[in-house]
This record gives sequence, C-alpha cells and structure tokens, in this order.
Amino acid sequence: MMEERTCDLLVRNARQLITLRSSEPGPRCGRAMEDLGVVEDGAVAVRTGRIVAVGVTDDVLSEVALSPGCIEIDASGKIVLPGFVDAHTHPIFVGSRDDEFELRIKGATYQEIARRGGGIRATVRKVRQASKQELFEAALPRLDRMLEHGTTTIEAKSGYGLSTEDEIKMLEVVRDLQESHPVDLVPTFLGAHEVPDEYRGKKPEYIELILHEMIPAVAERELAEFCDVFCEEEVFDVEESKLILTAAREAGLEVKLHADELSPFGGAELAAELEALSADHLVAVSDQGIMALKSQGVIAVLLPGTTFSLGCRQYAPARRMITTEVPVALATDMNPGSCRTESMAIIITLACVMMRLTPAEAIAAATLNGACAVAREGAIGSLDIGKKGDIVIWDMPRYSYLPYHFGVNFVEMVIKDGKVVVDKRNKN
Amino acid sequence: MMEERTCDLLVRNARQLITLRSSEPGPRCGRAMEDLGVVEDGAVAVRTGRIVAVGVTDDVLSEVALSPGCIEIDASGKIVLPGFVDAHTHPIFVGSRDDEFELRIKGATYQEIARRGGGIRATVRKVRQASKQELFEAALPRLDRMLEHGTTTIEAKSGYGLSTEDEIKMLEVVRDLQESHPVDLVPTFLGAHEVPDEYRGKKPEYIELILHEMIPAVAERELAEFCDVFCEEEVFDVEESKLILTAAREAGLEVKLHADELSPFGGAELAAELEALSADHLVAVSDQGIMALKSQGVIAVLLPGTTFSLGCRQYAPARRMITTEVPVALATDMNPGSCRTESMAIIITLACVMMRLTPAEAIAAATLNGACAVAREGAIGSLDIGKKGDIVIWDMPRYSYLPYHFGVNFVEMVIKDGKVVVDKRNKN
Repeated sequence: MMEERTCDLLVRNARQLITLRSSEPGPRCGRAMEDLGVVEDGAVAVRTGRIVAVGVTDDVLSEVALSPGCIEIDASGKIVLPGFVDAHTHPIFVGSRDDEFELRIKGATYQEIARRGGGIRATVRKVRQASKQELFEAALPRLDRMLEHGTTTIEAKSGYGLSTEDEIKMLEVVRDLQESHPVDLVPTFLGAHEVPDEYRGKKPEYIELILHEMIPAVAERELAEFCDVFCEEEVFDVEESKLILTAAREAGLEVKLHADELSPFGGAELAAELEALSADHLVAVSDQGIMALKSQGVIAVLLPGTTFSLGCRQYAPARRMITTEVPVALATDMNPGSCRTESMAIIITLACVMMRLTPAEAIAAATLNGACAVAREGAIGSLDIGKKGDIVIWDMPRYSYLPYHFGVNFVEMVIKDGKVVVDKRNKN
Repeated sequence: MMEERTCDLLVRNARQLITLRSSEPGPRCGRAMEDLGVVEDGAVAVRTGRIVAVGVTDDVLSEVALSPGCIEIDASGKIVLPGFVDAHTHPIFVGSRDDEFELRIKGATYQEIARRGGGIRATVRKVRQASKQELFEAALPRLDRMLEHGTTTIEAKSGYGLSTEDEIKMLEVVRDLQESHPVDLVPTFLGAHEVPDEYRGKKPEYIELILHEMIPAVAERELAEFCDVFCEEEVFDVEESKLILTAAREAGLEVKLHADELSPFGGAELAAELEALSADHLVAVSDQGIMALKSQGVIAVLLPGTTFSLGCRQYAPARRMITTEVPVALATDMNPGSCRTESMAIIITLACVMMRLTPAEAIAAATLNGACAVAREGAIGSLDIGKKGDIVIWDMPRYSYLPYHFGVNFVEMVIKDGKVVVDKRNKN
C-alpha cells in the first residue's frame, strides 16, 4: 500500500465497471466516444463523498482499507456507471400540456400551437400564478424520478417566468432544490425563452428588459451559472441572441444556446462565434454549422426525446457530428411541452435507434460529455479518483443492454456523494 | 337496492374511470375507438374476483354493500383502467440479443442477421439447451415487469423450440406460469416461427414435422389455444402458412398470423381467407390486404415497438386501418430479438407518436381490442359487470397523460382477479 487510504463505501465485483476514465481532459470526440474504460470485475471506493480508488476489485482492495462501518455493496453480475448528467432540462413548472400532445397527434405543429397562445406561454401563465412553494413541491417528484432513473446532476433552466420577478422566483426554487434534494442542479437563466403575452409585438422592449433588468438582477444574486437563449424563427433571431448572450457574459454568466431546432437558422454558427459552452437541439444544423461547432469545441447537446415527442421524423445529424469530431452530449430536455420524460435511459435508446449512436457513444454522451456541457467535468461524469461518488448500479449484464431493453427501469441502486439514496435490491 | 349485493374490494372516487363499457360485443372499430366510457368520480366493485358494479361512486355505493373486511381503495386524483391485454408476446426464452441490436445500429438488417444464423435461430439454440425450470425462472421477472407496468393478461407463443419435444417444453412452461403467476397467459403454438438449423434447405420436411407430429402432439395435450405462423419472405410463404394453419384448425386450434411485417406478402389476405382471429405486424400491408381484413373482421394486432426497435422508419398504416374500420389492437411483441420491452405504456406512446393513434384509440387498442385478439372479450378488456376484477390504478390526472409522459412508470396499483398484486402507494 503506497499510502494509507480508507474508504467508507465500496462497490465491488461489478461485472462491468464503466469508468469513462481518460488521460485527456475535456469531452470525448469521434472514435474516443467508443472507449468507456470498462473494467471487468470492477470496484470503486469512496471516502467522504469522493472516489479514492477505482479499478479491478482485487487491486482496489489492496489499495484501500475499509473504515469501520464501511458500506460494502456486492455488484456481482451487475454493471456500474457514473450517474447520468442531464445537461438540458426545464424542471420548474406547474401544470401539464398533454392537451398539446394530443393536438400534435391530430396534426397541429409546435409553431401553430405556440401562435395560438399555447406552448411555452401557456406554462408561463401558470408559473407566474404559482408560489415558490408550489413550484418547489411540483419539482420534487420530477427530481425523485430522475434519481430513480440514474441521473445525479441536471442543468435546470428558468424561462417560464419571463418577468424579472418570476425568473428570479424560478431560479430561487432551483437554489432551494439544490439545497434540499440529492440531485445536483446547475442553474441556467433563460429569460429569452419566449416573448411573454404582455410584450407581444414589442420584442425590442422585452429584450431591453432582459438586458438591463433581468441579467443584472440574476447576476447580482448569483442565481445562475449560464445564460441560454431560444434562438429560432418566431422567437429570438441571431442578432437578438447575440446581444443577450454578450450582455450575459459581461455580467459573468457562461453562455449556451437553443440552436437550429426547427430550421437552419445560424444558431450553431453563433454558438461558435461566441465560444458558447454548448449549442443544444441542432436538428436542422447546416454543415457549416457543424464545422463551426468543431472549430470552437462547442459541445452539441442533442435532445432526441424532443424530436420524438414532437412527432418529427428528422433527428439531429449525430453521426455527422461524431465523424466531424464535434463532442456530443445527450439530455432529456425534460419540459411540460415538447418532451415529458425524466428517463435518460429512454433518451439513450432513442439516440441509438433514431440517430445511430452506438450504445458506448450514447453512454459517453450521457455521462462525461454531459458533465462537460455543464462545466463540471472536474467533479462528475466519470468514475475517477477525486471525483464525486455519484455511482449507479444497473441490473443488467452489459452496457449494450441499456438501450436494447427499453421502456423499463433497471436502476437498482443510486449512490450520490457516496451515500445510498435509491435502493431497490429488496423491493418485493 | 334492487338486489342484495356485496363486494370484497372497492376502488372509489377515481378522477377518471376508463370503463370501455359497450352495449355491442366485439372489438371497437373506427370512431368507436375514441369512446372509452369515461366515468368521472368513478368506482368499481368486485366480489370473489368478478366485477359486480361499476359507475359513479355514489351510484355504486347505493348498489352494493361492503362485506366485512372489504378492501376499500381511494383513487382520488387518479385514473383507473382495465388491465392491459398484451395480445402478442414471446416471453419464454433464455439469453439476450443486445449484440444484434448493436449490429443493427451499425447497419445490418434483421434479415441479414437471420441469414448469418442470428435472429430467432440464435435463441432456439439456447432454448433447446435449457431445462423447463430454467425457462420458467427466466420468464418470471418478465411477467413481474409486465404486471408492474399494468398488464394482466398476455398471449404467449412458443416458437423457440422448433422440435416437437422443445415446442412442448415451451408450452408446458407457459402452462406452469399460468398456474403460478398472477398474469394470465393465453398459449399459442408457433412451431412455424423459423426453419431450424437441422432443416435448412429441407423446409418441406420441417413442414411435414409440424403437420404430422407437432400439431397433433400440441392438440392432444391441450397445450395451446392458437396456432400462429411467421408468414414472410425467407420464412413461410402463403401456401405453406395456409397448409399449417388449416391443419391446426382441423386439430381444434384457432389461427393467427405474423403477416406482412417486412414486405407486402399477401399475409393479410390469407388471414382473411382463413378467417383468422388476428393478423399481426402488418407494417407492409397492401390496401387490398386492409380491405380483406375489414371484410372478415380480422383484428389487426400492431406492434410499433418492433418497428421502432428494428430502426425502421415505416410503421403499420394504423390510421388507414382505423378509417377502414379494421379493429386495431396494440401489443408489445416482447421478445429477445426485435423488441425487448414489457411496457405497454411505451407501446402506447409509440402508437400515438409514430402511427398517429389518439390516446383514446391507443388505450382501446391495448385493452378491449387486445382482449378480443385473444378471444377473451367476455372476461377481460373492460370494466363491466361480470368481467374479471383486473384493474390498474395510474397516478396521473387524465388518460391523455399516459402516452404524453413517457419512459417512466406511473402504475400505482394492480388488482388481478380482485386481489391487490402490486402496490406502490407507500414505496418510499
């Protein structure tokens, strides 16, 4: 034993321990997305919430001593993954929009529903009337479901307030959830999600409000790490998005962008120009857009659940991005309108089936690359020494089983910061 | 109170009780699929496993008296459905074919994999080596998952034995499961699922074996209610299928057909000619095929999970079938190769998103029409007096929420034959 090390939690004898360890920092690109750092008969040891050893079980046992009361978990026959990092979610809302889901089945488009006052603005009306307590309580079961489905960190956007007061209210709910729920939340300000009812036909005035009131208020209170804009036809155009994101960066926020979801609108190019951390959606991205993302190392956060739930047949060109060595992450986009799911597993299945990601690529995209897309790659996204003990045990024989057996949840145990927070081993 | 009636289980105050009651027998067709017989503030009362009253809670309470020890379940804020009837499954197997899932993502077709000795024959090799006990134990967690996801009756096919001995072994496992698990299983003989390795190039001899040895053996032992054939290019053609199904009917089995899954092969037309109970898959069915199904009232059992999992973009023309008044049912096709899911909820979501069924149509297809497709409409598929107390409580506000919020399981309680068999109300 090189140095005296102890652990207070040990997961051992995993059939496949998916470490995603890497000697190079940053997200996985291209063929490197296939390398999950799989250890057969693997173990991971945690002390006070941080990983202190990882590798073949016998090696780990020779490196660390078990502290008294150490929790020892036998993962024989199971696979072990880092917790999923869901890098694009809208979890703070009240109400349901299953009515719009049904309208879309009957032929209405997302844009038509939005024009009639449905879509985001329908949720905005409800969120404005809700108290912080109501928003908090509505979000809790969503976070519980995320945790039960293997997600340990999410990015969480505002964007259903669309007034200074209501955007702050939403971000304060995110902060309160961060303090009280095991799931870690990374807050993003999305005041430019839509133009609210009272500013219809007065978009420049609404942008003024964002620039001169919302961004300073959010930055001053340190309520967000990122600023995001819905850059799309009929929402915010490229110039407007640039104005908002530039102001946000000057106020100390990192930038993200809803880009090219419904039409090739130059969003990816803007994300590259601004050196945004991520460009999200990208269903309609152009080849130039892909090259631009590659040139600046912008992470493409793909949201196939949204394309699916909107009933669209065209998915983001993920294979072309991977070939071009754009780093690709996967997220749920969990929201009440265009994608109502908390399950990263179904997103992984959709990514494999609809975008032809291999199981390994999809898992890298949902873990390490997701961590990079929220600027947390130093702390989460892989099972590596010094990172958080965010560990999920799955009751399946191989990682390629994860996308294959779909629509049911095989998470058996979730460990967050080294503590067991979900345990379904003896549920019956 | 017209007559003295008591109940030993009562579900009351459901926000929406989806009864699917109908004055007309048989499956729902056309616009009638939209009528779910929804009762607001609904109740259903059960005595010794059978439904004795159903309707508005106050009315039910005035009709029946609660027996001593009656289990009373408050379904306030919840929806209540009949248990799903999954009319097409292959639940008896060992092993996993996630390797083929990955090959398909990388570009191989289902037929190419089959030609190389993968596909059904890969599972056949494993099933032949497995004991009845091994097959039984492998099937149990699948039935558990089905029950937890709201399915109370399934059709269960043989077809991974492909020898008289191994087909009988599979059907005996189905019988043993029927005797020991709450889920009801309806057995189907599918000796004509594929041509086994030892009969490659000798299909006529294998058909002789089916006709003169397997069918008599299955019929004599009363191990199956239905006979099914995989009627498809490179498997069994229309004439061969007709020969087998005619012999089966003469031996007392009702007939079903895997029809037009991969190419328009005349399977639907054959199903109509034989007056089969159902024709299943139908992805590539022709317009004449649809008309033929309609003319004979053959039920179209659609399996969108298979189309999805195979990565195909073309789904069965469900809307054309509904417009033509062909009765449509939905099933999982749960099997180790082309569709590995136990969840009827994800099938319903896929049916809505990919085939444009409305939520109401999809629910009718998964309950009453599924019951018709296994000839059990007198006993299951709706909440109606005299039918089995197969009742599922869902933690959601409206039935249209079921396809909308996807990839997570909202079943809160499952009642089978009037007994609570799944209860997740106080899981935490």
